[in-house]
Amino acid sequence: MTDVVRVGLLGCGNVGAALVRLLDSNADLITQRSGVRLDVTRVAVHNVAKERDVVLAPGVLTNDADAVVSDPAVDVVVEVIGGVEPARRLILTALKSGKSVVTANKELLANFGEELFDAAETAGVDLLFEASVAGGIPLMRPLRESLAGERITRVMGIVNGTTNYVLTQMTEAGSSFSEAVAEAQDLGYAERDPTADVEGLDAASKAAIIASIAFGARIVAGDVYREGITKISADDIAAAKELGYVVKLLAVAEEHDGAVGARVHPAMVPIDHPLASVRGSYNAVFIEGEAVGQLMMLGRGAGGGPTASAVLGDLIDAAKNVRAGARGATIGDLVRKPIRPIDETASQFYVSLDVADQPGVLATIAGVFGNHEVSIQSMQQKGQGEGARLIFVTHLAREAALTATIHEVRELDVVVRIGSVLRVVGGEE
Amino acid sequence: MTDVVRVGLLGCGNVGAALVRLLDSNADLITQRSGVRLDVTRVAVHNVAKERDVVLAPGVLTNDADAVVSDPAVDVVVEVIGGVEPARRLILTALKSGKSVVTANKELLANFGEELFDAAETAGVDLLFEASVAGGIPLMRPLRESLAGERITRVMGIVNGTTNYVLTQMTEAGSSFSEAVAEAQDLGYAERDPTADVEGLDAASKAAIIASIAFGARIVAGDVYREGITKISADDIAAAKELGYVVKLLAVAEEHDGAVGARVHPAMVPIDHPLASVRGSYNAVFIEGEAVGQLMMLGRGAGGGPTASAVLGDLIDAAKNVRAGARGATIGDLVRKPIRPIDETASQFYVSLDVADQPGVLATIAGVFGNHEVSIQSMQQKGQGEGARLIFVTHLAREAALTATIHEVRELDVVVRIGSVLRVVGGEE
Repeated sequence: MTDVVRVGLLGCGNVGAALVRLLDSNADLITQRSGVRLDVTRVAVHNVAKERDVVLAPGVLTNDADAVVSDPAVDVVVEVIGGVEPARRLILTALKSGKSVVTANKELLANFGEELFDAAETAGVDLLFEASVAGGIPLMRPLRESLAGERITRVMGIVNGTTNYVLTQMTEAGSSFSEAVAEAQDLGYAERDPTADVEGLDAASKAAIIASIAFGARIVAGDVYREGITKISADDIAAAKELGYVVKLLAVAEEHDGAVGARVHPAMVPIDHPLASVRGSYNAVFIEGEAVGQLMMLGRGAGGGPTASAVLGDLIDAAKNVRAGARGATIGDLVRKPIRPIDETASQFYVSLDVADQPGVLATIAGVFGNHEVSIQSMQQKGQGEGARLIFVTHLAREAALTATIHEVRELDVVVRIGSVLRVVGGEE
Repeated sequence: MTDVVRVGLLGCGNVGAALVRLLDSNADLITQRSGVRLDVTRVAVHNVAKERDVVLAPGVLTNDADAVVSDPAVDVVVEVIGGVEPARRLILTALKSGKSVVTANKELLANFGEELFDAAETAGVDLLFEASVAGGIPLMRPLRESLAGERITRVMGIVNGTTNYVLTQMTEAGSSFSEAVAEAQDLGYAERDPTADVEGLDAASKAAIIASIAFGARIVAGDVYREGITKISADDIAAAKELGYVVKLLAVAEEHDGAVGARVHPAMVPIDHPLASVRGSYNAVFIEGEAVGQLMMLGRGAGGGPTASAVLGDLIDAAKNVRAGARGATIGDLVRKPIRPIDETASQFYVSLDVADQPGVLATIAGVFGNHEVSIQSMQQKGQGEGARLIFVTHLAREAALTATIHEVRELDVVVRIGSVLRVVGGEE
């Protein structure tokens, strides 16, 4: 006999509706593989009267989400509302009622993850969140289970499809930043207000979750150093190409001497690095571990289908555990580890400076770099006279030293303008 | 109190020794993450006296593998001997003794997987095998768990690092096939006898395992259609580049109308396909699913560290289940599904023909293609006179139709020689 597991769904938008359709179309497949039948018992939505492209039994839809999370006829709760409240309150209630929870909510996990994990631990139920980072790409499960014995040193992800689309268009179609954002909006990749994407807020939430899971540390969104892509110019993209790089917005999590760093910023990625070939709205996560070496997972980071697929994988896992009276992999105790300030990290840097085209300029500027012990790997002059620009790539340098260098260079009479300062992937410790 | 789980290790070569070192160096990390302590209780090797780069407690080494698999003081058995016997007998004994087993043995699983899975099912213990395909890349767990609700349509993998290294050297350094194989041997990527790699036997075992897990079907190595890379010439590589392709050895598993196809052959991969950028000895697996879309996992497919990392992930999972008295994800019943013969698959094809350079040749040859309903997407002539060559890329065509076409073309007076016939990725059904 196949066991029925009753699912309470919170939210029935893009992802929720895709999940309901998948549960319907793949019902036999799921039962064959897992031995359970998943029955969508309750679906809480804001407006029950709204037209939806899903078929639900009569009485399943409700606008009372609180009733769903405390309903004894619900075994597992799936939360795809997004945002902090009421999702946080609902998930906590569900966990306290002994129900396992599957969520796709990055914002909530990146800010209140510890509270939720603790509540799941206390209740002895599963809290699964594969879909919260990089959509359909299996990432959380591989990090937590496949790499359970691996000492991970760094994770670098392209975890925001909108900005990757924008940067790809700037690189391949020569679009300006604002043109590319407008195209992304037309295609539905970007919101009308693209701030959360282009300023790196979305990626920072994901960086916090990745750092928490990869290093077993309590990292929240506020711990993540963040720069967006709004200052990336067509000139930067062109200079990157000429130097053999592609500009990508990266979410980086790394552990160094017991301290965890998490940061989001645009970076120049060498053209032969696996992350460089991740185009358009695709996401990818590059993992470095001491034994396993380098891994990369690539796929769709957003969209109803891919996100619902990840939610469903978690849901089947939770359902099997409900039936077996067992718990799945727990994330273990998240430990308080020191946060490594951005000033202490080291990178190679790309620095472009608009300068006065006169003898001795390079010597003056190079002297400032040298005084701060930032050594220069390459220099190129672009243009002449009024439009003269110097492009430097440094060797590995501390952020603090680079910042001090830029501060002093800015004051030089021969420097007209600081163009861009971008980190370069490849030379990190 | 931390629970101790006692590990019996069969084999202590490259992978086994790397595992022992990882268990030692990461012991605290493993305990922190999983709550168990893994203790290597017995290690069975062929020659106890041999010098090994591992530290083992006195009395742990033995040359009696049978004693290890039936030792009541062993909870989990790890098999890294490789080959069918005695690995098969030892694993069956371990399973029947109620011990969970972790194995990296592709050959065994690809030929006797069903027997082993049935034995594990009967005994109610885990049989885990992440390391058997694509080394350190998390693949089996994502397929079985993350994608548990996903209808997978096709998996295409670069699962043999040796042949990928050889093809990369031919593409990037202009090496001949035999030069590239010699380089691979010098680097330790290829065996003195490279047959298992270059003839696709290794990849075929992995294709059988992938097809079994992705489609829940009973597929053995003998079901896999197989062509190696020994006939790939520098001319093919050059023609591929000119047409916008890279030649890769692919293991392909697909399900179509309930029938499962599994095949290994060289193929032309479009330069902008994620698999095209997988260079050197790296492996990668590209997965297509109805909801999730396209995914790719990339990493090291061989080597002590990456393989041991994958074995360790499985071992920690099995150990946690031993302590919890639970079982991990089972693969479910493997169903007998019809095998789709290669003749019924359809691809685009690249065909190169050495021809007599005289009027009407193209019309004659194109007529034969047309008679078999193989339509031509593009044609290029290379060289003239004695060295004249025609290069065709077809639209999607059935293998049977293409085979019949080639058979008839071969008989034409104007055709001097059939150069190469290669499948092209991108136009499949």
